[in-house]
Amino acid sequence: MIAELGETQMQIGIDSFAAAYDDASLAVSASDRLRNLVEQIEFADQVGLDVFGIGEHHRRDYLDSAPAVILGAAAARTHRIRLTSAVTVLSSADPVRVFQNFATLDLLSQGRAEMVVGRGSFIDSFPLFGFKLEDYDSLFAEKLDLLLKIRENEHVHWSGKHRAALTGQGVYPRPVQNPFPIWLGVGGTPQSFARAGALGLPLMVAIIGGETRRFRPLIDLYRETGKRFGHSPDRMRVGVHALGYVARTTQERVRSVMTCACWSNGGDLSRCGNSATGTSAHSTN
Amino acid sequence: MIAELGETQMQIGIDSFAAAYDDASLAVSASDRLRNLVEQIEFADQVGLDVFGIGEHHRRDYLDSAPAVILGAAAARTHRIRLTSAVTVLSSADPVRVFQNFATLDLLSQGRAEMVVGRGSFIDSFPLFGFKLEDYDSLFAEKLDLLLKIRENEHVHWSGKHRAALTGQGVYPRPVQNPFPIWLGVGGTPQSFARAGALGLPLMVAIIGGETRRFRPLIDLYRETGKRFGHSPDRMRVGVHALGYVARTTQERVRSVMTCACWSNGGDLSRCGNSATGTSAHSTN
Repeated sequence: MIAELGETQMQIGIDSFAAAYDDASLAVSASDRLRNLVEQIEFADQVGLDVFGIGEHHRRDYLDSAPAVILGAAAARTHRIRLTSAVTVLSSADPVRVFQNFATLDLLSQGRAEMVVGRGSFIDSFPLFGFKLEDYDSLFAEKLDLLLKIRENEHVHWSGKHRAALTGQGVYPRPVQNPFPIWLGVGGTPQSFARAGALGLPLMVAIIGGETRRFRPLIDLYRETGKRFGHSPDRMRVGVHALGYVARTTQERVRSVMTCACWSNGGDLSRCGNSATGTSAHSTN
Repeated sequence: MIAELGETQMQIGIDSFAAAYDDASLAVSASDRLRNLVEQIEFADQVGLDVFGIGEHHRRDYLDSAPAVILGAAAARTHRIRLTSAVTVLSSADPVRVFQNFATLDLLSQGRAEMVVGRGSFIDSFPLFGFKLEDYDSLFAEKLDLLLKIRENEHVHWSGKHRAALTGQGVYPRPVQNPFPIWLGVGGTPQSFARAGALGLPLMVAIIGGETRRFRPLIDLYRETGKRFGHSPDRMRVGVHALGYVARTTQERVRSVMTCACWSNGGDLSRCGNSATGTSAHSTN
């Protein structure tokens, strides 16, 4: 509605990978860590942040292999903040279960759930769930197609190479929001930007390092592709997931950046713990 | 420990299938229904019930296709009550994802999670997830074997017929409780009672109708099998899931039983809504 008035609406949020380490890279109690994380989401809701995202990883360093369960806890403690995955590794997941998890989250949160789906930047989930890396792209394309069909239809007709066919089975529960918000999470691959544009899906760009402006041509590609496929410009939303450092004072912030620098080169930004968390900005314009 | 003193410890709880219908069998808002369910679990915690269970179904009538997400919400609102699935339909699930979901729930609840795994009394999940009914029993046996291996080992070596092999991959996060409590949910099949006994797993008997005493010989079979396989008698715990009717007065209770009778013949007990919910009693003796 605000877009109709020619104004720009910007949403700001925080993403976390639920790192199993504290600021000094020491292991913390996993149970305390998740309790603190839910408290942080509660606090983010209270101070008026727009969105909180939880990643999905399948390795010892992170406690977020089941993001929808963590977000379910957050739903019960929050009132306004939107809750999303950041990102759901769709290639190695079953779109039916993913949709069921997030539809349930949408019901629990009274319509505040979203998901960002991507191919993921880690590959641990492939051998864990029996998928081959050589199918990296076809797995994602096929599963995204199924996920969007489930979003559109209560009873699904679909067949593909990497998952059993659906011949009209119903997928339940149905979410509050219709259509349920599904963002496409992308890294630096041009084809991914073009895919999001062709499908008319909102775009979440993961900028783990480097200069933000180098993404400009890719975002132009997204918008142009969307236009060519006949999608209305107000559907073509762009979000950015980037490193952020938050502290009480500049001095504290500098110290925390120094502590984190050793990790962030490897992309392990959430290892930096509470004082350095990925931030995401969703823009409707 | 109480068993060593020769005393009996009994736990009492409630199971819900999150029916999408109210007491008069009318459809209710799915979002309100789940919000109310979480409030009911919160209340159950406050009044001192020991356990709350959420079923798993994949049909329009029920909102519980993702029980761990609902229980995640409940974990954030409760302090003492134990939270369990009732039951997880393991045959058509991936034991890795099931373990990840419930380990996350265990962390969020500071060690209050359990799961009851079974073959399920509905068959909707088989075509939905691409499994064949002719593999009904071998699916369950194999997946239970994998689930128990994951519970025992952080890094899993396993191979089977119905799921990709694991060659030492780690499964994370690890739960607070070790061993994480896994119950075997059974109906009336003698082989299922014997299986639970042979594995030394606690037993949850679903009594949907009929006389309770007809289960006595089957429970004897469970205990005898456990003994033969060398399991200590205090490991052989028995729980019962049965229809229960709760109301303020006897008159109200009778009226609610009458309303429910039409449904309970089909086993759809949770369709009876809030006034009639399955109750489960866990006994350590």
